[in-house]
Amino acid sequence: MSLWGKRDDMVVHERDPFNAEPPRAALAGRRTTPPDAFYSRNHGPVPDLDPDAWRLTVDGLVDRPLELSLAELRDRFAEHEVAATLQCAGNRRAGLAAVRAIPGEDPWGPGATSTARWTGVRLADVLAEAGLRAEAAHVAFAAPDVSQLADPPQPYGGSIGVDKAVRPEVLLAWAMDGRPLPRVHGAPLRAVVPGWIGARSVKWLTRISARAEPSDNYFQATAYRVLPADADPAAGGGISLGPITVNCDILRPDDGDRVPSGPTEVTGYALAGGDRTVARVDVSVDGGRSWTQADLDDGDSPWTWRHWRTTLDLPRGDVVITARAWDSAGAVQPESPVHLWNPKGYANTSWARIALTCA
Amino acid sequence: MSLWGKRDDMVVHERDPFNAEPPRAALAGRRTTPPDAFYSRNHGPVPDLDPDAWRLTVDGLVDRPLELSLAELRDRFAEHEVAATLQCAGNRRAGLAAVRAIPGEDPWGPGATSTARWTGVRLADVLAEAGLRAEAAHVAFAAPDVSQLADPPQPYGGSIGVDKAVRPEVLLAWAMDGRPLPRVHGAPLRAVVPGWIGARSVKWLTRISARAEPSDNYFQATAYRVLPADADPAAGGGISLGPITVNCDILRPDDGDRVPSGPTEVTGYALAGGDRTVARVDVSVDGGRSWTQADLDDGDSPWTWRHWRTTLDLPRGDVVITARAWDSAGAVQPESPVHLWNPKGYANTSWARIALTCA
Repeated sequence: MSLWGKRDDMVVHERDPFNAEPPRAALAGRRTTPPDAFYSRNHGPVPDLDPDAWRLTVDGLVDRPLELSLAELRDRFAEHEVAATLQCAGNRRAGLAAVRAIPGEDPWGPGATSTARWTGVRLADVLAEAGLRAEAAHVAFAAPDVSQLADPPQPYGGSIGVDKAVRPEVLLAWAMDGRPLPRVHGAPLRAVVPGWIGARSVKWLTRISARAEPSDNYFQATAYRVLPADADPAAGGGISLGPITVNCDILRPDDGDRVPSGPTEVTGYALAGGDRTVARVDVSVDGGRSWTQADLDDGDSPWTWRHWRTTLDLPRGDVVITARAWDSAGAVQPESPVHLWNPKGYANTSWARIALTCA
Repeated sequence: MSLWGKRDDMVVHERDPFNAEPPRAALAGRRTTPPDAFYSRNHGPVPDLDPDAWRLTVDGLVDRPLELSLAELRDRFAEHEVAATLQCAGNRRAGLAAVRAIPGEDPWGPGATSTARWTGVRLADVLAEAGLRAEAAHVAFAAPDVSQLADPPQPYGGSIGVDKAVRPEVLLAWAMDGRPLPRVHGAPLRAVVPGWIGARSVKWLTRISARAEPSDNYFQATAYRVLPADADPAAGGGISLGPITVNCDILRPDDGDRVPSGPTEVTGYALAGGDRTVARVDVSVDGGRSWTQADLDDGDSPWTWRHWRTTLDLPRGDVVITARAWDSAGAVQPESPVHLWNPKGYANTSWARIALTCA
């Protein structure tokens, strides 16, 4: 029996908390990721919330605190749909763990990245109804899933800056690809923060608090930070992750495949976050000495990945295919995971590489 | 006699058009760059505009086109000051030219980066007065300095997206560090677009046009684009540069210095653009195998560089010092200029390196 309705071939890093990613082939060529392939990243047990009893509290630095049922949320605010890719900050951690061990963190491949059409209301509209005060600089999300991995154990939470919170793409979503949100993906309601690390798209959302400071939840204040290589992760500090920086990976062929030599179609995805989009993807069969520009699809919105494809003439023998993406500001992925290694293994944006044997 | 009131030790790449940068020592340790050291990047002769006859036209997709004298501009809009670093897209091109020649482009060092306090009015306020229409997506700047380097020769111009144009940090400035703008820096009025490549901070501004599309001026439509290594620069295409991506360089010691071995203070600057700020600077004496975190000053605003400093224990012999900056989204500079080389030599964001001889 599959876990949480997922494909049988999911790469399950942990069963409890449930952490699983699809194989590359399940993402290849699909602008939208089927729900049974969408990656799942959790820090505690999956809550089972009664949608009738569920309420959303909106409080903190607002003039009119709210408590809303799901029906009230749907009735009082306009419905919007946004196509958006979510990506875990630990996506591609395996490439960092190959440099040096990262104890206690799952070795995600490139599959902690998936795309859906999300339906819900704009966070901006709800905050406007609550009367966001001028001194609010951050908007915190809280949920009931208690994580034993936090220090001390606590429910999951996080926050985003108010500049992002009031943008039209940020949703409180109850549906994914036109169907009610599956329990494992946050039913009855989750935040969707396009362009930011998945950790800020808080699932099983029960409280939204406007604050002067970022959330003091463990997963905002201590985790999800890029630390210097010699730092103690428990001490906090480092760079708190928010907007996703430009990244890509190869989806087909798969890493380790045996394929015929000769002209071969190579495909993958690229993603940029914040206010940036993917502008170009280069692919190489000689380790980056020369590059072929891949064809890019349009993406379904500024907030989704762009799939890319090109045909390379593969020589016989052992071949490494390398890919790198450029964003709309002209930034390109750095070469090597060696220089990106960090104690929690976040933000591996180094060039994508797969090894093939070509007959 | 110095050129355009600049220091005698400016590195003058061209006298006409005047293109010059200060030596590293002139920038080191100074949050604000003295006007006589501020870099100067021009594409044509420096105009000599009569401030009494000068008018600013605001037209295009606006409800109420404006024609404003300098006195009207100062009287009708609130005055604002913004500390901002400007950086040329060709800054550090010398590092790319060392990989492979870049004909027709000046080999700028790290000095095409300078900081001032700018005084003027907000572009947003002027656009609001003119009644910016909903279909305006770009704001174009035009100036009278005719460039013979453009194809065909034409006055300099460029544009920025309307999202940026209406932000409070974007100014129409008549003063620099509290004194009237020097002629070589754009008197009587220039655009100042903090966080974007210097090319968009158009000097000698005479016209602002709201448009549905980016400016079709040569310097927007063809130049200032990152092209694939094998592309023809005359053909256009590529990634049009706007927001600056994270970068840094070393200011003291100077490249090529002979210094005593032992504890040595190393200083420099780091800069990030768009919505990002500098979060961390690492410095290495072993080519990046190990890093020391530098101390960062606060910067005078989110739009200025941050100076950094650290003390390294330099061994005897030939030593290369390497530095790299991380931005607030967790993006870090890529390692090598080899992989960033592009036909026009823009956006060299590779790690900073200086070579020393330590006695």
